[in-house]
Amino acid sequence: MNVRIPILKLDEVLIVSIQWELDDQTAIQFQEDLLNKMHETTARGVVIDLTSIDFIDSFIAKVLGDVISMSSLMGAKVVITGIQPAVAITLIELGIRLENVMTALDLENGLTKLRRELEA
Amino acid sequence: MNVRIPILKLDEVLIVSIQWELDDQTAIQFQEDLLNKMHETTARGVVIDLTSIDFIDSFIAKVLGDVISMSSLMGAKVVITGIQPAVAITLIELGIRLENVMTALDLENGLTKLRRELEA
Repeated sequence: MNVRIPILKLDEVLIVSIQWELDDQTAIQFQEDLLNKMHETTARGVVIDLTSIDFIDSFIAKVLGDVISMSSLMGAKVVITGIQPAVAITLIELGIRLENVMTALDLENGLTKLRRELEA
Repeated sequence: MNVRIPILKLDEVLIVSIQWELDDQTAIQFQEDLLNKMHETTARGVVIDLTSIDFIDSFIAKVLGDVISMSSLMGAKVVITGIQPAVAITLIELGIRLENVMTALDLENGLTKLRRELEA
């Protein structure tokens, strides 16, 4: 079965909840799917929820960093939510600083933050 | 890889978007995951979005019908959104009438409907 990460559209925002560790192929597919969906729906924001992820490897971290840069290029604001301690450590150690990205504790807070930002 | 359907929590509501055809094992796992998450989060409502599903077989239809009945038993209101024509036909032909369930055209409408219902 071709595993894909579901991407939900809620008003102007796409929501992605990553709930299991991604293998490399799924991560690449996700990148492509998200950018396509963004284009298709003209979404202005994306929330990527990592609450359930307690480990991230260097490849996935890079894909994630890339997705965020690509989304910004396409004009969408990105919020990453629920980054766990181990994931934060890995990201920084790998030099992935996610500097232009908003973060929030959980999905609810992330959505609120993003909506406020989109209204501004 | 053990494939699971992500279940998002947004305030009092769980959101599930089924974006590919389920195999039997994934469907059963989904049933279990959803009921557990409902118990864990004390969510009062569930939205199951089927927008991307254009075909449903009798086993999955039964699991879906069961999940809805079980969720009601556990005290949650369920909204099914985005049922496509072929899926509607299959459900009715199989005698799965989803009588106690709210339906809506898409995720946004479903959430609005559910929230109105929860406030009432």
